[in-house]
Amino acid sequence: MPQKIVKLTVKDVRFPTSLGQHGSDAMHTDPDYSVAYVVIETDGGMKGYGLTFTVGRGTEVVVCAVKALSGFVVGKTLEEIVGDFRGFYRLLTSDGQMRWIGPEKGVIQLATAAVLNAVWDLWARAEGKPLWKLLVDMSPEQLVSCIDFRYITDALTEQEALGEACCTLLHNSLGSSLSNGTVIKKPIQLMSDYGARFPNHQSRVFLICGFVSLTLSRSLTHSLTHSLSHSHSDLLRKAQTGKTEREEQMLKEGYPAYTTSCAWLGYSDQQLTQLCTDALASGWSRFKVKVGAELEDDERRCRLIRQMIGPDKTLMMDANQRWDVGEAISWVTSLAPFRPLWIEEPTSPDDILGHATISKALAPLGIGVASGEQCHNRVMFKQFLQASALQFVQIDSCRLGSVNENLSVLLMAHKFQVPVCPHAGGVGLCELVQHLILFDYISVSADLNNRMCEYVDHLHEHFTSPVVIRNAHYLPPKDPGYSCEMLESSVETHQFPGGVVWANLLAKAPE
Amino acid sequence: MPQKIVKLTVKDVRFPTSLGQHGSDAMHTDPDYSVAYVVIETDGGMKGYGLTFTVGRGTEVVVCAVKALSGFVVGKTLEEIVGDFRGFYRLLTSDGQMRWIGPEKGVIQLATAAVLNAVWDLWARAEGKPLWKLLVDMSPEQLVSCIDFRYITDALTEQEALGEACCTLLHNSLGSSLSNGTVIKKPIQLMSDYGARFPNHQSRVFLICGFVSLTLSRSLTHSLTHSLSHSHSDLLRKAQTGKTEREEQMLKEGYPAYTTSCAWLGYSDQQLTQLCTDALASGWSRFKVKVGAELEDDERRCRLIRQMIGPDKTLMMDANQRWDVGEAISWVTSLAPFRPLWIEEPTSPDDILGHATISKALAPLGIGVASGEQCHNRVMFKQFLQASALQFVQIDSCRLGSVNENLSVLLMAHKFQVPVCPHAGGVGLCELVQHLILFDYISVSADLNNRMCEYVDHLHEHFTSPVVIRNAHYLPPKDPGYSCEMLESSVETHQFPGGVVWANLLAKAPE
Repeated sequence: MPQKIVKLTVKDVRFPTSLGQHGSDAMHTDPDYSVAYVVIETDGGMKGYGLTFTVGRGTEVVVCAVKALSGFVVGKTLEEIVGDFRGFYRLLTSDGQMRWIGPEKGVIQLATAAVLNAVWDLWARAEGKPLWKLLVDMSPEQLVSCIDFRYITDALTEQEALGEACCTLLHNSLGSSLSNGTVIKKPIQLMSDYGARFPNHQSRVFLICGFVSLTLSRSLTHSLTHSLSHSHSDLLRKAQTGKTEREEQMLKEGYPAYTTSCAWLGYSDQQLTQLCTDALASGWSRFKVKVGAELEDDERRCRLIRQMIGPDKTLMMDANQRWDVGEAISWVTSLAPFRPLWIEEPTSPDDILGHATISKALAPLGIGVASGEQCHNRVMFKQFLQASALQFVQIDSCRLGSVNENLSVLLMAHKFQVPVCPHAGGVGLCELVQHLILFDYISVSADLNNRMCEYVDHLHEHFTSPVVIRNAHYLPPKDPGYSCEMLESSVETHQFPGGVVWANLLAKAPE
Repeated sequence: MPQKIVKLTVKDVRFPTSLGQHGSDAMHTDPDYSVAYVVIETDGGMKGYGLTFTVGRGTEVVVCAVKALSGFVVGKTLEEIVGDFRGFYRLLTSDGQMRWIGPEKGVIQLATAAVLNAVWDLWARAEGKPLWKLLVDMSPEQLVSCIDFRYITDALTEQEALGEACCTLLHNSLGSSLSNGTVIKKPIQLMSDYGARFPNHQSRVFLICGFVSLTLSRSLTHSLTHSLSHSHSDLLRKAQTGKTEREEQMLKEGYPAYTTSCAWLGYSDQQLTQLCTDALASGWSRFKVKVGAELEDDERRCRLIRQMIGPDKTLMMDANQRWDVGEAISWVTSLAPFRPLWIEEPTSPDDILGHATISKALAPLGIGVASGEQCHNRVMFKQFLQASALQFVQIDSCRLGSVNENLSVLLMAHKFQVPVCPHAGGVGLCELVQHLILFDYISVSADLNNRMCEYVDHLHEHFTSPVVIRNAHYLPPKDPGYSCEMLESSVETHQFPGGVVWANLLAKAPE
């Protein structure tokens, strides 16, 4: 039964986090965590919820951009959209007039993310699955049909992506029955044979191997054979465990997380010490500290936190774009004794070549470079990977064009063998991005080495299906959808500027 | 007498150019040329006019962003702003909350451009000069004090910029009295001597050389000496003619232009032929043709225009981001027989490495790569230059953060020795950017080789000081300001959606 989208509403919802210096860093000294909050409704009475994250002033501009996009959504059925999701993505991002104010960057891409997040939420609800499970159950062809490959084919073609996705699917399926390199030759041979017997492009090869039946088109078989012959050993290494096992593993253990809640730049040493003590007691073993305002201050704080967590736990540093290239190298070199795993956002998020220079300079110190929360589209991520400018890819569920664009980045990161460690925090970012990284582990990377998802312990109470953290791991969400529905009361009281929270604050504020 | 800015208004003004397919290209098939139009007013009764260019839908989002920025402007005096213009630029672009929705890109940077363009207009009016002359008369220190060097110091430091600006100023002044490389040693020696005698950083060296008196700080003297010793021969080559002479030359001859008016993608061959015939008769010798939709179509149109203009005149091609990297190379190779000087925007404006690959592949064919109208900030231009990804830098008066950010790009392009050929057209872009390129020639590049400014013959009638073209050259504007004041009647009738032009069109449009 087709679900026609008949209404889209968007609201400016802000939380006065700056009052407690939560979220403060070297560049965003007084963030009020906010969202442009989108609800779409169908004629069948279903709703989809989406959002994009902002930090206060300017949210109204994103709200305005969402309104400008709503005409592309209202009037379409869910089936029309997901039946040609690549086309729909292109429609939103490449309108002949609207693309001028982007394209695919800044305000308009944030708005695109909010709208598409709501569509994905609606789809997952319609399927009765949490989003990560919807993705995990999709075929490689369905997955790549959501991706706009424009401008990235010099790094990843659709055929390669199919190959990648299919390889993973194959090794996931074969995993448990494979024990060494010789066994895999049979299915390759088998598939090649079948491919040759059915020259029609539309023909299908049914390959029964173990417990899973794969349906592969001829072009896909070709890709698969090609990919297998090129990444034989890698595939076998990863194929030691299967996809179903990884899903079970995630359901049991959850996805590893790190915490940023202890060491915002505006927190006092006393506050930092207390929060760190609590976090250690709760089982956290990976910590991120904000740096970049004053070197002496950074040294004191990093020393304090390294002493508290001991030599074996993981420390990351985040400069939030504070430095120029040369400054980043010398500053981080000064902080090297505290052994950070990575320095995050050392300079402008647009500076691919700058990040490459910093990566090269810090490699001998064993420090990687991480970035992505303000990397505005797949074209930028492509270049960061091509230039070896990042050692950790930090996808964001609301900066990129929703699941669609994130899928392309996950596949590129996999191809370039760079671990993905998502950005989260803010309002709803943890709720959203957990779905993407669960999918990445189960269906793409099959790897947990040097991988973890950011966690920040703020504002989850405003969601109907808040994240569940157990022993510093994200437990996979079970409710259908994309986990970004907010409590109606929270939305109402925090609307800017009319909600009661803001009405009170603004009444008290000096003119 | 301080001028306090007491009011900022912004309007959504659109022209229905899509009805005639003016401005149509491979990605923007139906542009309605538009502006977010800003007027600032002082308590002294002065006004400054600014705008940013858009192509229809989405203009209201930029208008919303301008409103979000207005609080940074209203209440300040012009003197406060221009007295610390770098600080004011940073205030607008690096607000701790607002930068999240950029930073320095897309909607918010377009809005920044509109606001700052109005401030520069106000300043030039207050000084009673056209903007280009205000810039030409500024000292190197004043010029660099307008630039935010954040994120570009690995390519251009303030000291280098001072050196560059000062070198130019020096050779401009000395030009007429210099005939060979030996003469310049005297002023260097002289300045070094003076520098040594006044060790105080604040001390000034007064250097009288010919007809101009230079006031140089000690650090500036150092830069100058350093720069001169590093770019001796280059400086001497350029110093053959002086700044005053170049200003006189511009006033007499104007700045060379090329025309894009003849060959929009949506024009018929008949229309193209007629417009080309007219343009040749009016003295045009440089033509740009839109390509990228259909190869056969492109070949036919390019053959037609090359036949009409003959083998000696200049042809440029513009794909408006239509291709992926590999596609761009093969497509342009097919069009190489028509001998384009450049291919413009072959792929995503974000793809620095892609442009570098295309540049390398097309170099043997004698075809350069041009881009910039959607290059969103100085950090991107820096990398395009560092990666040798462009052979022509196309600055835009409304995409970058106004004059301030354009100054940094002009200086970087000069350092990397890449010619600047500004993007213009649209609404008001010709009016604005002519000021920047006049300044570039007179005070920075001193070079016309492979340099020209785009010209499009649309919508000039809506401005109070429209561009003056004579013999395919821009004649320097004489009215005080930045030439972007529009006729009140034009603004009123074209306001969207309430102005009479739109009220009529929308009444006729099918639902």
